[in-house]
Amino acid sequence: MVCGSVAKAAMVISTYPDKKSASKAARGAVKSGLAACVNISRISSVYSWKGKIEEGSEYLAIFKTTQGRKARLKQEIGSSHPYDLPEIAEIGMGEVDRQYMRWIEESTA
Amino acid sequence: MVCGSVAKAAMVISTYPDKKSASKAARGAVKSGLAACVNISRISSVYSWKGKIEEGSEYLAIFKTTQGRKARLKQEIGSSHPYDLPEIAEIGMGEVDRQYMRWIEESTA
Amino acid sequence: MVCGSVAKAAMVISTYPDKKSASKAARGAVKSGLAACVNISRISSVYSWKGKIEEGSEYLAIFKTTQGRKARLKQEIGSSHPYDLPEIAEIGMGEVDRQYMRWIEESTA
Repeated sequence: MVCGSVAKAAMVISTYPDKKSASKAARGAVKSGLAACVNISRISSVYSWKGKIEEGSEYLAIFKTTQGRKARLKQEIGSSHPYDLPEIAEIGMGEVDRQYMRWIEESTA
Repeated sequence: MVCGSVAKAAMVISTYPDKKSASKAARGAVKSGLAACVNISRISSVYSWKGKIEEGSEYLAIFKTTQGRKARLKQEIGSSHPYDLPEIAEIGMGEVDRQYMRWIEESTA
Repeated sequence: MVCGSVAKAAMVISTYPDKKSASKAARGAVKSGLAACVNISRISSVYSWKGKIEEGSEYLAIFKTTQGRKARLKQEIGSSHPYDLPEIAEIGMGEVDRQYMRWIEESTA
């Protein structure tokens, strides 16, 4: 039976210029117990910068942690980020499988 | 005119070790009317397992269904998953285009 | 210090048949100030269409804008979309880094 626990989990996203910096941030967050796991995927980003439309390759990192740890995680992402103005945003989460939630809590205890 | 309907839709995510198992889960969920569609993307995951930081290739599956079907969908994902401890988590959704929402409802009726 | 602002940001997703149409929609939304940035990623989609299970390559576009702009953005996505029945759905967002939020607001002013 899959039972859920109301969102004690938190999901924080950020984007990185390359795989190396995204992996480095992910490893740092997991090693320091600020995130249980991080999913990294390659994306193409379109944005305007100084009046010009830019399109370039980036890496999206999805950090999974607890509501209790998210503030420290976001500070760590911000202070170690290669961008001057990084995206650090929370995605709303609903129910998370109870077993998996326990793993997230143990990994970030 | 694009009109939305307040979130009757539900989005459930899970990760799989390879494309084959992700596609199998997606086809099973769509065939049994538990999901209207599933988006699968390749990711790299960083996590700690038995005290070691691991980084490996996985596949993220995003299942789209209705609030009414999500419990059964999550049970199906859990019971047929190749992992012992799968991630099964809901992403919070806001407004969904009314036409598209009707298609989700018809596909999972 | 990373401070957040309660979700004035909005995230809208849609899927496209190819990279070209996804990029075109992204550039149009950014150029017209309806989105600050758009992340595009390649996905494989499984869905049922006229009674058959289909699996095909698509592109997921994640548009980031403000709560104030999202209605016009969704109209633009819908009116210029290559599909007759496009997915146009909002993802729930939580706190967004204040500096980044200001950039989203300036980009969509």
